[in-house]
Amino acid sequence: MILFQCDYNEGAHPKVMEKLLETNLEQTVGYGEDEHCAHAADLIRKACGDDSLAVHFLVGGTQANMTVIAAALRPHQGVIAAQTGHINGHETGAVESTGHKVLALPQTDGKISASQVKDLCEAHLHDASFEHTVQPKMVYISNPTEYGTLYTRKELEALHEVCRRYGLYLFLDGARLGYGLAAADNELDLPLIAACCDVFYIGGTKVGALFGEAVVMSNEELKKDFRYLIKQKGGMLAKGRLLGVQFEALFEDGLYLEISRHADRLADKLREAFTQAGFPFLVENQTNQIFPVIPDHILEKLGEKYGFNYQERVDETHSAVRFCTSWATTEENTDRLITDLKRMAQAV
Amino acid sequence: MILFQCDYNEGAHPKVMEKLLETNLEQTVGYGEDEHCAHAADLIRKACGDDSLAVHFLVGGTQANMTVIAAALRPHQGVIAAQTGHINGHETGAVESTGHKVLALPQTDGKISASQVKDLCEAHLHDASFEHTVQPKMVYISNPTEYGTLYTRKELEALHEVCRRYGLYLFLDGARLGYGLAAADNELDLPLIAACCDVFYIGGTKVGALFGEAVVMSNEELKKDFRYLIKQKGGMLAKGRLLGVQFEALFEDGLYLEISRHADRLADKLREAFTQAGFPFLVENQTNQIFPVIPDHILEKLGEKYGFNYQERVDETHSAVRFCTSWATTEENTDRLITDLKRMAQAV
Amino acid sequence: MILFQCDYNEGAHPKVMEKLLETNLEQTVGYGEDEHCAHAADLIRKACGDDSLAVHFLVGGTQANMTVIAAALRPHQGVIAAQTGHINGHETGAVESTGHKVLALPQTDGKISASQVKDLCEAHLHDASFEHTVQPKMVYISNPTEYGTLYTRKELEALHEVCRRYGLYLFLDGARLGYGLAAADNELDLPLIAACCDVFYIGGTKVGALFGEAVVMSNEELKKDFRYLIKQKGGMLAKGRLLGVQFEALFEDGLYLEISRHADRLADKLREAFTQAGFPFLVENQTNQIFPVIPDHILEKLGEKYGFNYQERVDETHSAVRFCTSWATTEENTDRLITDLKRMAQAV
Amino acid sequence: MILFQCDYNEGAHPKVMEKLLETNLEQTVGYGEDEHCAHAADLIRKACGDDSLAVHFLVGGTQANMTVIAAALRPHQGVIAAQTGHINGHETGAVESTGHKVLALPQTDGKISASQVKDLCEAHLHDASFEHTVQPKMVYISNPTEYGTLYTRKELEALHEVCRRYGLYLFLDGARLGYGLAAADNELDLPLIAACCDVFYIGGTKVGALFGEAVVMSNEELKKDFRYLIKQKGGMLAKGRLLGVQFEALFEDGLYLEISRHADRLADKLREAFTQAGFPFLVENQTNQIFPVIPDHILEKLGEKYGFNYQERVDETHSAVRFCTSWATTEENTDRLITDLKRMAQAV
Repeated sequence: MILFQCDYNEGAHPKVMEKLLETNLEQTVGYGEDEHCAHAADLIRKACGDDSLAVHFLVGGTQANMTVIAAALRPHQGVIAAQTGHINGHETGAVESTGHKVLALPQTDGKISASQVKDLCEAHLHDASFEHTVQPKMVYISNPTEYGTLYTRKELEALHEVCRRYGLYLFLDGARLGYGLAAADNELDLPLIAACCDVFYIGGTKVGALFGEAVVMSNEELKKDFRYLIKQKGGMLAKGRLLGVQFEALFEDGLYLEISRHADRLADKLREAFTQAGFPFLVENQTNQIFPVIPDHILEKLGEKYGFNYQERVDETHSAVRFCTSWATTEENTDRLITDLKRMAQAV
Repeated sequence: MILFQCDYNEGAHPKVMEKLLETNLEQTVGYGEDEHCAHAADLIRKACGDDSLAVHFLVGGTQANMTVIAAALRPHQGVIAAQTGHINGHETGAVESTGHKVLALPQTDGKISASQVKDLCEAHLHDASFEHTVQPKMVYISNPTEYGTLYTRKELEALHEVCRRYGLYLFLDGARLGYGLAAADNELDLPLIAACCDVFYIGGTKVGALFGEAVVMSNEELKKDFRYLIKQKGGMLAKGRLLGVQFEALFEDGLYLEISRHADRLADKLREAFTQAGFPFLVENQTNQIFPVIPDHILEKLGEKYGFNYQERVDETHSAVRFCTSWATTEENTDRLITDLKRMAQAV
Repeated sequence: MILFQCDYNEGAHPKVMEKLLETNLEQTVGYGEDEHCAHAADLIRKACGDDSLAVHFLVGGTQANMTVIAAALRPHQGVIAAQTGHINGHETGAVESTGHKVLALPQTDGKISASQVKDLCEAHLHDASFEHTVQPKMVYISNPTEYGTLYTRKELEALHEVCRRYGLYLFLDGARLGYGLAAADNELDLPLIAACCDVFYIGGTKVGALFGEAVVMSNEELKKDFRYLIKQKGGMLAKGRLLGVQFEALFEDGLYLEISRHADRLADKLREAFTQAGFPFLVENQTNQIFPVIPDHILEKLGEKYGFNYQERVDETHSAVRFCTSWATTEENTDRLITDLKRMAQAV
Repeated sequence: MILFQCDYNEGAHPKVMEKLLETNLEQTVGYGEDEHCAHAADLIRKACGDDSLAVHFLVGGTQANMTVIAAALRPHQGVIAAQTGHINGHETGAVESTGHKVLALPQTDGKISASQVKDLCEAHLHDASFEHTVQPKMVYISNPTEYGTLYTRKELEALHEVCRRYGLYLFLDGARLGYGLAAADNELDLPLIAACCDVFYIGGTKVGALFGEAVVMSNEELKKDFRYLIKQKGGMLAKGRLLGVQFEALFEDGLYLEISRHADRLADKLREAFTQAGFPFLVENQTNQIFPVIPDHILEKLGEKYGFNYQERVDETHSAVRFCTSWATTEENTDRLITDLKRMAQAV
């Protein structure tokens, strides 16, 4: 069985493993106050072109989302997100468990727009019983989105603008950020993201690390006392240096983008193959997640040999599924799948 | 600088690293539903002599404590713990952040007794306004305790008994369990702990793993839906197999106890050296944490060469500090410290 | 200015005030353990035809909703409600503040159906990553709904059935229950509601009391320790007997239904007048809330003399508003409004 | 049976009831935005000598404590209180249920001191792992305390000073404030309290109202968005004007202090009688709560005729109990108790 199920089916990129081995018996202080974390934070600040950024390393995405949001909001405040946003539907109510409502908006290709945010804020401001409703205070977006799509430069800047205007924090979930930055249609870079967002994170778990997300903060209010929050929410790794070491490996020689490009290229090959085979896509994108719509009987066949995620039923005989590539996907496995796709499509 | 500061100053035991490397490019499903986790859970069930136990792998101790307690309690219920219990003073209020009061009891050498628990429960039952107070529903103990001491068999059985009688869950925090099981004065073993506790965990972070705690549950009520809670509290590792792989390494060939014995033996050597040097102990114990009371001017000297933790001021000229050994502590570094201790003691 | 803004513009029904005065200097124990509360609970059990029901008196609706839901759910569980449900949009995230997600469903005339609940539960059960989503465990409905509509007997029984099947609690918010029970198209009665719901409440605040909601529970799981929860969530009134006394007044001689009938009758008169004036309704109903759609220039005129609630914009020149009657609404004020409506409609 | 059990055994002072009756059929807007609330707030601001204070009316004490504390603290912050503080032991963990730890300090006669607060803050600042502990951010005191004692002017000013120095909020729970202000040994007044505290409340429930506490805030940070919090925590009374009307009655003609004086005078008479009867006190105070230590066989006799609260066992044959007077206590009942005390004491 060959898995295209997700981008965390394997361990870590060999260079990350190597660095972990190399440093394994070094003695350092705990809880992220070691030199590897300091150095990795510097590398990230440099990549973002801003010395004043705070950088914290957390173990996983749900943890990062929950900790950032709990740190940022007062009890009566909520976070705006797309209906399909990870925090709204795939984190077992982690945000609500810290006391906050997710204010879900309809999405287009996984994205929400500045004008939707504006409308919600205006409605709140003009509601005679506004104190009986949750106060919007943060906008959560993911880039790439849960559908693998990307915000354009203009869209991100507009979100930044509307957040500034209404006093909201802008928070970008970059669990798959590498695959976004390396995509053909990408318009963003780290300095722009750092300038537009109050807080965002650079995903390691899905992009070459064993685990780890680098939370980057520009807003002074959010920086204050954040380490207390990490500890309280269970995210302070005793051997914090493991996170520092991994992000050193990813950011020292451009490894992060290099391996992301690899994944996106293989995804492009696959996308081409699905198209050739006559399968349309649930959503169009150019990152490492592909959502082909495929006849059920072909899916059954494919499922005997390949692992992928069921996404949703499209009609009585077709379903959308998700195939992922990653830094670990091999050319060989990709070609094998492409060959099988061709054969199956011809057999139809 | 040689660190005796804590038992998480290094990475993982070489055999753990080896196993992580070996399995690094294997493809597995995520979130702990892979075969390594299944196998590691089996090994732990076998070590505990009980096939019916549920085993879940979490990343860290605060996370394990918070998740177990939040899963077990209804909103009006609290958890009894020693004043010095880790959940009461060193987790930034993680338990309270999930809505529950820690009902702190005075400790003796880091321990609480069945009769203290009984008294608290009786007081609650006989309080005319009991509904205005937090209902005790769980007892939290750590073994070894925060002072490195151990519960005797009799003490543990008495706690089990009193919990049964008053309808409380018994929860044992085994962050340093290996160092307890391997200690000279230890009376417990895994089957006994599994039989006495509704839930406990076997610490990996401080005993040879990069990170990881194996939560073991015998109580059916606690088992129900626990994975939802792990996800919600941010503890579900995407590449869950990393935890399975590490616990396989620790439990396949007795490595867990073997490396714990090593640490305890070096601690014994150090303890002997402190005694010889004329330094008494804040608390007596036989595990890997040592709490000598040392004149401040000697501490200053020691601090130039060795890392250790400041514990508390004892009088105007003496302080208690903590030295830790671990699976990673070398004979060489231990002897170096012993030599220096001798020299300093003679110089006084 | 004559207010038709809501059903809590005045104090309490004179008979309620009389009873409060009569008992004012009686000495009773506090916190609802007095004889008036016991007697009122008996009256309500009798009206519901079930001696085994638990009855608790709380001060207000948000408090009742939050306390019941927090008492019922484990941390990973959520409550299903209509998008327009009071808990979803008008309680400043009170449910989320206790850690639980509101799983909002599209509504029809303010109602949700058994088949919607079934679909959501089935989707959860068949989701491969169900543990990454909130577990549905309760259904919240309001009757009358926020649009003044009523569940039919069949609809309520179907909800009961689907909840039983999927292990959900059914919770009915009866903040305006009297106005529902007294409505022309009502098919429910208290015994049926008590039989179908695990928990519901009989609203006093909007139906003749100064304040107060009677929470009625049939499910044994929910009954357990509920008073602890009331205290913890700030709902345990020191002089609890004030609630008992008021519900005695409302339930001793059928006052509750009598005054509800009065309000519904005046609402019918008003509804007729709006219709005659040519104004359609946003939603059709037969209870004490009326939602006419009115040209903005007429609204402006009406607003000089009458208080009502703005509901929503319908088109560029029309808005839907809400007029409420209550036990306190006078025939005289109603007629005055009707006369003005006629005049304005003719002037158009 | 004559009750001296607490100061909420009766309804409201007749003048409060009168005012409620008078205004009963007035039409006002809901949720505390009416003219009675505005007027009552003005009266309180005037009594405090500070026009800039924010005044909010809540229904009860636990609700007030929980709402103020949840509004003030970020998730990692806790509130310092005496071990005997109401929030620590008599509110079913309401503060913890909003996510915050109560940092309990040993008390002297129910009080904590500025130097205790200073020591705790200094210890936090100098703890190398301060981020692993709860950050102190608020001091909660009650005046009168749970033992009926009062803070001196000097003690309150010192607390104010230490709070300012360490960036803590000072919060005074005045559930029985009237009985404190009217006591013979009282040194405080409302302007001083308003100047020293960031937030405090003036208790109505125990001092003449049916229910109600007036929360008074001087600190701008705390004022912000507080009404959202009131709503979310279930404390926003639909007919908010009921609170305004009651506080108008209490503060228009000095009724609040007048009835407090009455209670304190009768308590003095009782205290004198207990002393004459040879019974010492658990704690000395001059407010409306009296804690005599009485032989158990006499208590048994007293209990046949009088209601009082059991406080604690003092030795094998003696217990401390609590007798309360209030605005509603009659001279006649007091004299009856005094006569009985004399007789019983002579019989010994």
